[in-house]
Amino acid sequence: MKIIMPEKILYLDHAAATPMDDRVFEAMRPYLTTQFFNPSSPYAPAVQVRRDYEAAKARVAATFGGRADEVVMTAGATESINLAFTAVSGHVVTSQIEHEAVLAAARRRGHTLVVPTDKGIITPEAIAAAITTTTQLVSVQLANNELGTVQPVRAIADMIDTIRQERRSSGDVTPLYLHCDASQGFGQIDVHAARLGVDLLTLNAGKMYGPKQVGLLWVKPGSMIEPVIVGGGQERGLRSGTENVAGVIAFACAAELAAEKRKHEAARLLRLRDMMQRRLQEALPDLVVSGHPKKRLPGSLHVSVPGLDAERLIFALEARGVLLATGSACAANKGTRSHVLTAIGLSDEIADGSLRITLGRHVDEVGCEAATRIIIEEVKREQARVSGHA
Amino acid sequence: MKIIMPEKILYLDHAAATPMDDRVFEAMRPYLTTQFFNPSSPYAPAVQVRRDYEAAKARVAATFGGRADEVVMTAGATESINLAFTAVSGHVVTSQIEHEAVLAAARRRGHTLVVPTDKGIITPEAIAAAITTTTQLVSVQLANNELGTVQPVRAIADMIDTIRQERRSSGDVTPLYLHCDASQGFGQIDVHAARLGVDLLTLNAGKMYGPKQVGLLWVKPGSMIEPVIVGGGQERGLRSGTENVAGVIAFACAAELAAEKRKHEAARLLRLRDMMQRRLQEALPDLVVSGHPKKRLPGSLHVSVPGLDAERLIFALEARGVLLATGSACAANKGTRSHVLTAIGLSDEIADGSLRITLGRHVDEVGCEAATRIIIEEVKREQARVSGHA
Repeated sequence: MKIIMPEKILYLDHAAATPMDDRVFEAMRPYLTTQFFNPSSPYAPAVQVRRDYEAAKARVAATFGGRADEVVMTAGATESINLAFTAVSGHVVTSQIEHEAVLAAARRRGHTLVVPTDKGIITPEAIAAAITTTTQLVSVQLANNELGTVQPVRAIADMIDTIRQERRSSGDVTPLYLHCDASQGFGQIDVHAARLGVDLLTLNAGKMYGPKQVGLLWVKPGSMIEPVIVGGGQERGLRSGTENVAGVIAFACAAELAAEKRKHEAARLLRLRDMMQRRLQEALPDLVVSGHPKKRLPGSLHVSVPGLDAERLIFALEARGVLLATGSACAANKGTRSHVLTAIGLSDEIADGSLRITLGRHVDEVGCEAATRIIIEEVKREQARVSGHA
Repeated sequence: MKIIMPEKILYLDHAAATPMDDRVFEAMRPYLTTQFFNPSSPYAPAVQVRRDYEAAKARVAATFGGRADEVVMTAGATESINLAFTAVSGHVVTSQIEHEAVLAAARRRGHTLVVPTDKGIITPEAIAAAITTTTQLVSVQLANNELGTVQPVRAIADMIDTIRQERRSSGDVTPLYLHCDASQGFGQIDVHAARLGVDLLTLNAGKMYGPKQVGLLWVKPGSMIEPVIVGGGQERGLRSGTENVAGVIAFACAAELAAEKRKHEAARLLRLRDMMQRRLQEALPDLVVSGHPKKRLPGSLHVSVPGLDAERLIFALEARGVLLATGSACAANKGTRSHVLTAIGLSDEIADGSLRITLGRHVDEVGCEAATRIIIEEVKREQARVSGHA
């Protein structure tokens, strides 16, 4: 499984961006070059592009048990989330630890933000307590992008279904949809629309070794959404604009590869992550591991060294070729403290010493061991500096 | 100037899609492969990607006299147009012959559609007559995508400026913006924000030998727009979502190439187009040429053969390697008559026999002559068939 990666870099920030798999790049290349035709044009080469596009939609949908005509292709998870929220005008329930796009979409209407547990779990009970008679949408992430915590989406779906049935039997026609932002986790855990029990599902090619700026919203038949972008009526009127043929072809290839290799890759990442966690804990006794110990993406490891300046550490690690993140990329860029870490109750001292390590397809045992060793060395060096023994 | 094109095809549908210039493809390639980092990540390779992205925004903006911080990158012209229309909530004035995206955005609020002249010109007088005291936005295309007619945008801007001054002097604070959809024409005619005198400008990489699904909205300082897509706050909060680094790098390259070669290319296309028009007129005496004879994109030629079935002709031409369109790609796909041809008053008989020929960068004299000959032969064959002499 060859990945296009710069030499000599130990990249451990797959939650921020995944390198494109070279098979994905090769799959999209013809549509960036010779097969450039507008899929709405009438002549045969354009009709073939249209067919390839529609087939790619069907292929990507099939990876999570969906169908081509249930999917709206978008420019990424953020647009998908905005589109999902058009399903309703009423009150929405989501959690404090969602991605910024969900939080921003929620803020545009009446909303309640549920508090996660200290392990970063959004419980069905907490969601249920926040649902009022006017609630029309619940939005829950599949896995948290900072902690890796995997949410009990199926249990939340079952709880919501009970409320729906109660509403129906009392003659209340207020809809209640469940949207799941599954941007993180595809290729590591099972992502299947029916098994998750959701009504709306967001996926992002750029987080599964596909291209950036390509995403989708799956819409369960019977759910109603409104277009965010109007125009020529593409995507059954739900998202206008000339179709992103190359991007969607690449998405299909990336999703198929990720789904096909999921079980093997999940086991491999789990082994590497657990080895890394164990060694870090052994070497750094005051290390705090955040997120749920079991219900966690196999490639995710969130650790904090109390009193450490994680931003300094990031640069020290970078100098040695190890690339990873403090908090989330969004928060990091703004120099603010992660809303996720605040929500799970991490003290500022611990939060400021946090590293987000997210393993991925190109990380092997040798690289993982080297990165672990370098992290331990740099943390110790930084600790010595802070304590004045440098 | 090498273009990636399939062999043995005479592609004359550049208004529907332009093939990507191979230099553009090479410019974007690293950002699809090794330079995959999230531009919001803190380590040096990601910071370099952020710099390259911002530099590309500045480069594309510079081609039309804009600045990086005045530009919002989007997923194409349709999204840009939707974003432009967020500037106002009040009445808008646009024309009957705009792109579907403008018409759809206009339909979402109070609007008046101006009737073009029979040459497809939207006059300042017609726009002025439609502007009421509540009008907040005028949207006019730079050039019509079917006829190639170039609109008097500067004259419309001057007229609007007069109305603005009148409003101001009477204490009326109602804003009045001018949006120009310049998707068609960049690289063929002068596109410069200040010289056009517009407040909002839409451009599309996919129509200037760049990638599809990449566009921008230029916003004149002082104009206010609202985000269509909310989230992480990218593009100064006006368009959230991880930045389309590869697409924007490609856009910059495409725009610079198009701007740099514009004068030479415009003269070349004009010569080819006029040659083609003259030969078609000589060979087909009842040929109707639509659009303005002078105020027309140099590469555009809209011709009709009364009584001919253009759709049949398209397939006959395709069999001989000549690819071109009936009406616009959008209209063609729906099997409906072009709203543009209806608006300029073409009879159904003439409209149904219409071909849209749009020349482009890879069409040379030999190819143009061959295509002209093939079109004449196939039109005559079809005419003979219809009149029963086949």
